Amino acid sequence: MLRKKKKHHIKIKSGLPPGTAIFTGEVKEEISETTVVQYNEASVNVEILRGDNCPLSSDKEVTWYDVRVLSDVSLIENIGKTFNVHPLAIEDILNTSQRPKWDDYDNGIFITVRALRLDEYNDIVTEQVSFFLEKTVLLTFQEDHDDLFKVIRERIKNGQGKVRQKGTDYLTYALLDCIVDEYITLLEHLDDKIEALETEVLSNSTPSVRSQIYRFKQQLSHVRRAVLPLRDVISRFSREEGEIVDPSNQVYIRDLYDHIVRVIETTEHQRDMLNNLDDLYNSEQSNRANHIMKVLTIVSAIFIPLTFIVGVYGTNFDVLPELHYPHAYTAMWIGMILIAIVQLIYFRWKRWL
Amino acid sequence: MLRKKKKHHIKIKSGLPPGTAIFTGEVKEEISETTVVQYNEASVNVEILRGDNCPLSSDKEVTWYDVRVLSDVSLIENIGKTFNVHPLAIEDILNTSQRPKWDDYDNGIFITVRALRLDEYNDIVTEQVSFFLEKTVLLTFQEDHDDLFKVIRERIKNGQGKVRQKGTDYLTYALLDCIVDEYITLLEHLDDKIEALETEVLSNSTPSVRSQIYRFKQQLSHVRRAVLPLRDVISRFSREEGEIVDPSNQVYIRDLYDHIVRVIETTEHQRDMLNNLDDLYNSEQSNRANHIMKVLTIVSAIFIPLTFIVGVYGTNFDVLPELHYPHAYTAMWIGMILIAIVQLIYFRWKRWL
Amino acid sequence: MLRKKKKHHIKIKSGLPPGTAIFTGEVKEEISETTVVQYNEASVNVEILRGDNCPLSSDKEVTWYDVRVLSDVSLIENIGKTFNVHPLAIEDILNTSQRPKWDDYDNGIFITVRALRLDEYNDIVTEQVSFFLEKTVLLTFQEDHDDLFKVIRERIKNGQGKVRQKGTDYLTYALLDCIVDEYITLLEHLDDKIEALETEVLSNSTPSVRSQIYRFKQQLSHVRRAVLPLRDVISRFSREEGEIVDPSNQVYIRDLYDHIVRVIETTEHQRDMLNNLDDLYNSEQSNRANHIMKVLTIVSAIFIPLTFIVGVYGTNFDVLPELHYPHAYTAMWIGMILIAIVQLIYFRWKRWL
Amino acid sequence: MLRKKKKHHIKIKSGLPPGTAIFTGEVKEEISETTVVQYNEASVNVEILRGDNCPLSSDKEVTWYDVRVLSDVSLIENIGKTFNVHPLAIEDILNTSQRPKWDDYDNGIFITVRALRLDEYNDIVTEQVSFFLEKTVLLTFQEDHDDLFKVIRERIKNGQGKVRQKGTDYLTYALLDCIVDEYITLLEHLDDKIEALETEVLSNSTPSVRSQIYRFKQQLSHVRRAVLPLRDVISRFSREEGEIVDPSNQVYIRDLYDHIVRVIETTEHQRDMLNNLDDLYNSEQSNRANHIMKVLTIVSAIFIPLTFIVGVYGTNFDVLPELHYPHAYTAMWIGMILIAIVQLIYFRWKRWL
Amino acid sequence: MLRKKKKHHIKIKSGLPPGTAIFTGEVKEEISETTVVQYNEASVNVEILRGDNCPLSSDKEVTWYDVRVLSDVSLIENIGKTFNVHPLAIEDILNTSQRPKWDDYDNGIFITVRALRLDEYNDIVTEQVSFFLEKTVLLTFQEDHDDLFKVIRERIKNGQGKVRQKGTDYLTYALLDCIVDEYITLLEHLDDKIEALETEVLSNSTPSVRSQIYRFKQQLSHVRRAVLPLRDVISRFSREEGEIVDPSNQVYIRDLYDHIVRVIETTEHQRDMLNNLDDLYNSEQSNRANHIMKVLTIVSAIFIPLTFIVGVYGTNFDVLPELHYPHAYTAMWIGMILIAIVQLIYFRWKRWL
Repeated sequence: MLRKKKKHHIKIKSGLPPGTAIFTGEVKEEISETTVVQYNEASVNVEILRGDNCPLSSDKEVTWYDVRVLSDVSLIENIGKTFNVHPLAIEDILNTSQRPKWDDYDNGIFITVRALRLDEYNDIVTEQVSFFLEKTVLLTFQEDHDDLFKVIRERIKNGQGKVRQKGTDYLTYALLDCIVDEYITLLEHLDDKIEALETEVLSNSTPSVRSQIYRFKQQLSHVRRAVLPLRDVISRFSREEGEIVDPSNQVYIRDLYDHIVRVIETTEHQRDMLNNLDDLYNSEQSNRANHIMKVLTIVSAIFIPLTFIVGVYGTNFDVLPELHYPHAYTAMWIGMILIAIVQLIYFRWKRWL
Repeated sequence: MLRKKKKHHIKIKSGLPPGTAIFTGEVKEEISETTVVQYNEASVNVEILRGDNCPLSSDKEVTWYDVRVLSDVSLIENIGKTFNVHPLAIEDILNTSQRPKWDDYDNGIFITVRALRLDEYNDIVTEQVSFFLEKTVLLTFQEDHDDLFKVIRERIKNGQGKVRQKGTDYLTYALLDCIVDEYITLLEHLDDKIEALETEVLSNSTPSVRSQIYRFKQQLSHVRRAVLPLRDVISRFSREEGEIVDPSNQVYIRDLYDHIVRVIETTEHQRDMLNNLDDLYNSEQSNRANHIMKVLTIVSAIFIPLTFIVGVYGTNFDVLPELHYPHAYTAMWIGMILIAIVQLIYFRWKRWL
Repeated sequence: MLRKKKKHHIKIKSGLPPGTAIFTGEVKEEISETTVVQYNEASVNVEILRGDNCPLSSDKEVTWYDVRVLSDVSLIENIGKTFNVHPLAIEDILNTSQRPKWDDYDNGIFITVRALRLDEYNDIVTEQVSFFLEKTVLLTFQEDHDDLFKVIRERIKNGQGKVRQKGTDYLTYALLDCIVDEYITLLEHLDDKIEALETEVLSNSTPSVRSQIYRFKQQLSHVRRAVLPLRDVISRFSREEGEIVDPSNQVYIRDLYDHIVRVIETTEHQRDMLNNLDDLYNSEQSNRANHIMKVLTIVSAIFIPLTFIVGVYGTNFDVLPELHYPHAYTAMWIGMILIAIVQLIYFRWKRWL
Repeated sequence: MLRKKKKHHIKIKSGLPPGTAIFTGEVKEEISETTVVQYNEASVNVEILRGDNCPLSSDKEVTWYDVRVLSDVSLIENIGKTFNVHPLAIEDILNTSQRPKWDDYDNGIFITVRALRLDEYNDIVTEQVSFFLEKTVLLTFQEDHDDLFKVIRERIKNGQGKVRQKGTDYLTYALLDCIVDEYITLLEHLDDKIEALETEVLSNSTPSVRSQIYRFKQQLSHVRRAVLPLRDVISRFSREEGEIVDPSNQVYIRDLYDHIVRVIETTEHQRDMLNNLDDLYNSEQSNRANHIMKVLTIVSAIFIPLTFIVGVYGTNFDVLPELHYPHAYTAMWIGMILIAIVQLIYFRWKRWL
Repeated sequence: MLRKKKKHHIKIKSGLPPGTAIFTGEVKEEISETTVVQYNEASVNVEILRGDNCPLSSDKEVTWYDVRVLSDVSLIENIGKTFNVHPLAIEDILNTSQRPKWDDYDNGIFITVRALRLDEYNDIVTEQVSFFLEKTVLLTFQEDHDDLFKVIRERIKNGQGKVRQKGTDYLTYALLDCIVDEYITLLEHLDDKIEALETEVLSNSTPSVRSQIYRFKQQLSHVRRAVLPLRDVISRFSREEGEIVDPSNQVYIRDLYDHIVRVIETTEHQRDMLNNLDDLYNSEQSNRANHIMKVLTIVSAIFIPLTFIVGVYGTNFDVLPELHYPHAYTAMWIGMILIAIVQLIYFRWKRWL
C-alpha cells in the first residue's frame, strides 16, 4: 500500500541521546542535491550544489535552500549549524517517520509535513518534507529525489504571481499550497475510482470489488493520517504573530487552511461512501447467495419427492397391484406433474420465483 | 447522484499562483446575465445586463448585482475590480467546488454557500452561490442559469415584507433564508421517501430496497457536506459586529441559524432512520433465507430417507425375503407414512412449521 | 410512528417574508379555546374564552393565557399584538415543526418545546407547546385540544404547592416540569416493553421481535430529537439573570435540568439496550439457521450414501455376483448400519448432535 | 438484571407540587434504623435509634447520622427539618431513582450516588445513597438495610487512619471511597468472567456464550450509568472551595477522582473486550456453519452423481447394451471410484478438506 | 494476553484507611534492589544497595534512586520518609494497577506510567514505573526486576548526551523517553504482524487469522489504555512552570509529547487497519461459503432431475411403452445431456460458473 521506507529505525535509535542526527529513511543511491534560489523583486539567482559545500549568503532579500535526498547527514548537520537550527529539529528532519508538526524555536519556525502522491501503480507514495523558516532564509528538506517544488521555482524565475514581491513566509505558504494541491489531486483520483466501483457494485459485483474497497479504505486512512495533524500545523501558522510572518499574508494562509479543511471533509465523505458501498456490496452478495439457495431449494423440493415416487414403483415386491393396471404409468406421470405444478404455484405465491 | 461539474479542475489550476481567476465549473452554452436591483424604501429600479458592461452606481440606498452563469471570467473580474473585491475572493467565486465559508476582507464580507435542489429525476443538483457584502452594495454570483432568488426580487418589487426598509445585510439574510428553505423542502421529500421505504420493508421487501437505501444515504451525505460548514458561516454572520450588519437584524440571522441547526438535526435523524431501516432490511432478508432453508430441510429430511427405503426394495438380490410377503408393499407404505409423521411432529415441536 | 401533522408546510411558506403568520399544522375541527387564569397569593380567577375576544388585564399579580388549538391565526396575532410579541415569535408559535428553542426578546422570553405522550396504540403523539414569558403575564400555546396543564390549573385553584406565592417564572417552571414528567412516563413504558422483549428473545424469538426492536428504536430517536435541544433550553433558563426570573427560583430550574439530563441518559441507556438486544436476536436467528442446517446435513450425509449403495444393487447387469450370494442382502444391511453408526459417531465427536 | 425497585413512581408523583416528600422505592418490611456516631480526636460515642426520635446534638466535633431503610418518611422529614435540609433535597433522598448528582444549598452540600454490588446470583444490586454535608454534621441515607459503611464505623471506633483527626469533609470522602471500592471489586469480578468467556470462545463455543456476553454488556451499561455522572460529582467535590471542605483534604478527593476515572476507563476497556469477543464468537459460529456446509457439499457432490449412474443401469430398457458386457459391473465401479477420486482431489485443491 | 499480576488486591485493601502502604503486585522471589546514581557535570558515582539501608545524600547536583522490585514495603516507606514523599504517593507506588497520572505535591511531582514490552511469546508484559521528582533528587520505582533504564545509566556514566549537564527534570524526560521508545518498538512489531496478516487474508485465509486479529485488537486495547492517560501526564509536564522544571528543557518535553501523540495516532491507525482486515476476512469467508454453496447447487440441480428421469425408467410397470423402443436408451441419454447443457448455460449466464 505504502512504499515502506521507515522500518526498524527506532530500534537503532532507541537509547541514543535526544538530538542525535541519524537518517532513518531508506538509503538510496542518489546523493543529496541542494538547489539555492536567491531573489528579490528585481532579480533571481539559481545555483545547484552537489555534496557538502554550503554556500554563503547574498545581497538578495530571500534565500531558499532546497535539499533533496537526505542520505548525506553531514551536509544537513553542516547547513543546520550555519543557520543555527536546533539539534532536535535536525533530528526531526532526518527521522523520516515524523507526524506533521509545528515547532517554535528562538530563531525560526520548524514545520514538518508529509507529501503524498500516486505512483504508476496507483499506490500512494509518501515523502517527508521539512521547512525551517527564518526572516530572510528558508530551508526545505525533501526526502526523495523527485522535485515537488519545480513549479514554484519556475514561477520565481519567470516572476509570475506575487512570490518575488514577498518574503520567506509567502514562499512557505506557496510551497505548502503545492503539497496540499497534490492531496486534492489524489482525492479526486480516488473519487473517480469510487464512482467506478459504485457502478460495478450496482450492476454486477465480482469478488475483486471487496479487496478494492479495502484498498481504498487503507489509502484513505493513510491520507487522513497525513492531513489531520497538518490542519493543526496550518492553523498554528495562520495564527502566527511574529516578525517572521507578515500580517498581510495571513489571508493566504487562511485560504490554505480552508483547503486543508476541505481535504479532511472530503476524506470523511469518501470514507462514508466506501462504508456505504461496502454495506451495499455485502448486501448484494447475500442477495446472490439467497438466490442460489432458492434455485437449489426449488429444484430439490420438486424432484426429490418425484424421485421417491418413481422409486416406489421400482421396487420388486411380488404383490404391487398398481404396476399391473394398464394406465398406471400415465397416471403416475399425471400425478407427478400435478405435484410439481402445486409446488411451483406455492413458490410463486411465496415470491421465490 | 450529483450532476458532476467540477472534475479535474485542480489539475489545471495546480501550480498557478494563488489569486488567478480561472472558472473551474462546467462550461455551458448560456452566457452570463447580470440583474441589477437598486432600491430604497420609496422606489425600485431593476435592470438586466448581458455581457460585459458593468453599470454605475445610483442614488438608491441598496444596489444588488446578481450574476448568473459564471463562464464569463472577464465580466466577473471587471465587477471585482469595480467594487474592490480581493483576488482570492474572485478565485473562490470562480472555483465552483468551494466548501461553504465566511471571509472577512477590509472592505466587505465574502460568503460562499451551496444551494441544493432536486431535479426531475430526484437527483440532487448542487450549485455554488457566493455573496460579497458591502455597506450599500451586495454582489451575488449564481453558478447556474436558473434563478434561485426570483421570489426575493418579486418581493422587493412589490414592497412585501421588510426588505425595502432595510439594508444589504437584511437582503443577504433573506437570500440565505431562501437557500435554506430549499434544504428543508429537499429533506421533507426525503422524509416522505424514507417513510414509503419503511412500509415497503415491513410488508414485502424487494432487492431494489437496498439500493434505494444506499442512494438516500449518499444523498444525505451530500446534504450534510453542504450544511455542516454552513452552520459555522451563519454562526459567524450572527456574531458579526461591524458597520455592515445592523444589530437590529441579528434576531433574523439567529432565526436563520436555528433553521440550519434544524436541518442538521433532521439529516442526523434521517441517517439514523436509514441505518435502522438497513438493519431491518438485512434482518428481513436473512429471515427469508432461513425460511427457504427450512423448506429445503423439511422436504429433504422427509423424502431422502423414504427414497432410501424404496431403493432397498428395488435391489435385485436373489434372496430378499420381504419382497415375497403378501402385505409387504402395504407394510412399507405404512412404515414410510409413520416416519414422515414422526418427522413432521418433530419439526412442529421445533417450531419450523 | 408519529401522528404526522406537519407535512408540506415549508413549500407553502417558502418565499414568503419572514414573520408572516401562517399556521402550518393539521387543521382540525376544534376551534381555539383560551383559558385565562389570574391569581395572586390570596385569590384566583379562571375564565374560559372562545374565539377572538382577548381579555383585559386585571389587578392580580400573575395572568396566564393558555391557548389550545392554534387554527385561529387572527386570535393569536391579536394576542401577540396586545402583549407585544415579536412577529418572528408569532411565526414560530404557528409553525408547529419547530425544534425546542429559547429566544430572548426585549420584552420577554420565548420558549418552544415538544410535548410527547403515548396514544392508545402506543404510538408517540407529539405536540408543540410555546411559552412567552413576561414579568406578570405568561402566554402558553398548545397545538392540540387535550389539556396538558390541567394538573397545574387544579393546583393553582386549590392553592397546593408554591405556585400561588410565586411569579410567572415559577409557573413556567411548573408547566415545563409537567411536560418533562410525561417524557419519564413514556420512557418507563418503553423500559417495561424492552424488558419484555428481552425475555422473549432469550426464550423463543419470533420474527416480529425484529420489527418491534425497530419500532422502539424509531420511538427513541423521536424522543431524543425532542429532548436534546430541550436540554440547551433549560440550561439557558437556569442561567437566566434578568428581572423576569427570580434568583430564588433557580434551584427549581436546576432540578428540572437534572431531570432532563436523566431523560437523555435514559434514552442513551435504552438505545444501548436495544442495540444489544438486536445483536442477540440476530445471533439467535443465525444459531437457529445453523441448527436447521445441521439437521439437513446429518440426514443427507447419512442417507445419500446409503441410497447410492442400494442403487448399485438395483442395477440390471447380467453379471453382478453379489446379488446371488445367499446372505448378500443381510450383509448389505449390516454394512449400511455400520456406515450410519460411524457417521453418527463422527457428528457426535464434532458436537453437531 | 437489576433488582427492580423503582417502577411506576413517576406516575404517582406526576402532578404533585415539587418538594413533596414521597418515598418511591420498594416498600420493605424492615423499619428505618438510624445510627448516630459522634466523635472528636479524643473519644467516640455510638448510638442506635429506632423509629422517630431524632437525637440532639452533642459536644463532639463531628456528628454523623446514618439512616438505613427509607420507608419511614416522617422520620426523614423530621431529620430534614432539624438540620434545615431543603425540601427538594428531601424529595431527592426519597425518590430512589435519582442519577448521581451534586447540589449546593445555602447551609450545606447535597450528594446522591448509587452503590452497586453483586448478589449471590451475580446480579447487580443497586442502592441509592445520599449525603447531606454541613460543617459539623453529616447525614447519610442508605436505601437498603445492609450496612455499606460498617468498615468506616469500625475504623472510627478503633481510631484507625485519619478519620478521627479530621472533619465531616474527610468522613464524606472516606464513605464515598468505600462505595467506589465496591465498583472496582465488581469490575474485577467481571474481568475474571470475561477472561473465562474468552477461553471458552477460543476453544469450543456453545450458544450460551452469546447470552452471557449480552448479560455482561447489560451489566457494564448499568455500571456506566452509575459512574459517569459520579465523575462530575467528585470533580465538583474536588473543586469545592468553601468553609465546609478543608483545602488540606483536597489531595484525598483528587485521589478519589483518579479512582473514578480508572473505573470509567475499565468499563470502556471491558466494553471493547466484550465487543471483540462478540465479533470473535460470531465469526467462530459462521466458521462452524461453513464447515458443516462443506461436509454437506462434499457428501452430496460425490454421491449424487454416482447415484445417478447406478440409476442409469437400473432402468429396464429392452435395449441397454452395457448391461450385457461381462465386465460392465466392474467397469462401472472403476468409473465411479475415479469420479470420486477426481472430486476429492478437486476439493483438496480448493482446501475444503 | 497480559501477564496478570494485579488481581484481587482491592478486596484486600478495601476498607483500610487511605495512605496505607500495601504492595498489591505479584510477590516474587527477587528482593528489592536500589541503584543510586549521583552525578554532576564533572563526575559520576554509582552504588548498588540491597535491602533496607537508605544512603545519605552527597555533594553531587543530581541524586537518582532507582528501586527495582517493590516487594520490600519497609524499604520504600523508609525512602518515602527520608524524602518526604506523601503517604498517598507511597500507596500509589505500591498499588501496581494505577492508571498513568500526574500529582503535584508541595515538595515534588509524582508521576506514574506503565511500561510495556513484548516477551518471548509476543505477549505484552506490563510494568508500573513511578517517579518522584524533586529539585535535586529523583526517585524511580520499577515494579519488575529487569532494568528499563540501563541505557540511560550507561549514558550518564559515559557522559554521552546532555544528561550530565542538566538537572533531575531532564533526567526524568530522558527516562520517560526511554519508556515511550519501547511503545514505538512494540507498535512497529504489531505493524509488521498486521501487514503479514493482510497478505494472508488476501491470498488464502485460514480460520486462525480471525483469532490473530482478535489478539492484536486486545493488545492494541491494552496499549491505548496505557498511552491515553500518559498523554495528559506529559502535557501537564510540558506546561509545568515551577522551580523544578527548567524552561530551557520544555523543548525536549514538547518533543516527548509529540512522540506520545504519534503513538496514539498509530494505535488509532492500526485499529482502523485491523477493523478493515476483519471486514475483509469476514467477506472472504462468506465468499468462500457462497462458492461452496454454488458447487452444491450446481451439482444437485444437474443430477437430481437426471436421477429422477432414470428412476422413471427403472419402474416395473407392466405397460411402459418407451422401454420397448429400440433407440429409447440412446434417446434418454441425449435428452439428459441436453438438460445438463441447458442448465450449464443458465448457470454460466447467471455467472455462477
